Amino acid sequence: MLIRRAAPGDEAALWAILAPVIRAGDTYVLPRDMGEIEALTYWLGQDRETFVAEADGRILGTYYLRANQPGGGAHVANAGYMTAPEARGRGIASALCAHSLDRARERGFTAMQFNFVVATNTGAIRLWKRHGFEEVGRLPGAFIHPTEGPTDALVLFRTL
Amino acid sequence: MLIRRAAPGDEAALWAILAPVIRAGDTYVLPRDMGEIEALTYWLGQDRETFVAEADGRILGTYYLRANQPGGGAHVANAGYMTAPEARGRGIASALCAHSLDRARERGFTAMQFNFVVATNTGAIRLWKRHGFEEVGRLPGAFIHPTEGPTDALVLFRTL
Repeated sequence: MLIRRAAPGDEAALWAILAPVIRAGDTYVLPRDMGEIEALTYWLGQDRETFVAEADGRILGTYYLRANQPGGGAHVANAGYMTAPEARGRGIASALCAHSLDRARERGFTAMQFNFVVATNTGAIRLWKRHGFEEVGRLPGAFIHPTEGPTDALVLFRTL
Repeated sequence: MLIRRAAPGDEAALWAILAPVIRAGDTYVLPRDMGEIEALTYWLGQDRETFVAEADGRILGTYYLRANQPGGGAHVANAGYMTAPEARGRGIASALCAHSLDRARERGFTAMQFNFVVATNTGAIRLWKRHGFEEVGRLPGAFIHPTEGPTDALVLFRTL
């Protein structure tokens, strides 16, 4: 599996990954009716680097990396990850996370923060903790889960 | 003191309040070299309502109110407050905070969150706690304070 920067021509494959995650609306705080252009503009935004994981010419996952805050908070990175539905359970999110931590160090970030990890997303939370993240905050009922209703969101953090 | 929506014509007075806070760079994670247009575009952004506190025709403080997240997080408000340097210690931040909590309720928000309160900003923290906010997270060393160096930032939260 190759992890490389996203490039022109990847848009359709990226949207095929983003769309089901956004429509499900149970893990990301993005508008559930977000359109393709709006979603790609967000995921490929000028304030971030976007990477894709590719195997046999197919894009199986993606992440973005950016500064979490400007000014006095610009040394802390933020990242978001998504895996193609048909490629789950193959360690892609883990490979993307490891890659993002290396890339963040390379860019001089000294920590990484996830601002809003939905507490019901237990597989992801276990995975981030295996990659060294710790829970540093819990936002009570900050997420309205489409089936579970008001749900806590966690703030995860690790130094690099 | 009147608290009203910011309006065309308030820009110079707003910049006079924003500039020293941004330049000091010890409380907000905004670029310390941010220019006037960029700062006003941020503070008066289309995603937020901006209010000013006025007394004897002078603007003494300002705040913005917005949804902290889109999608499943859009029921939680976020706000930012600034007081004119010459008007500090007169209860203006407290009046703005009370007004913002009322306005957030009126708009249907059910909670409010401050994402990044620099731990050395103890006066503000005491004030937000008097207004019902609790510390729900602590981001270790997430802020590079211009004189104190790496400093924790707090996440404050309250239901409405």
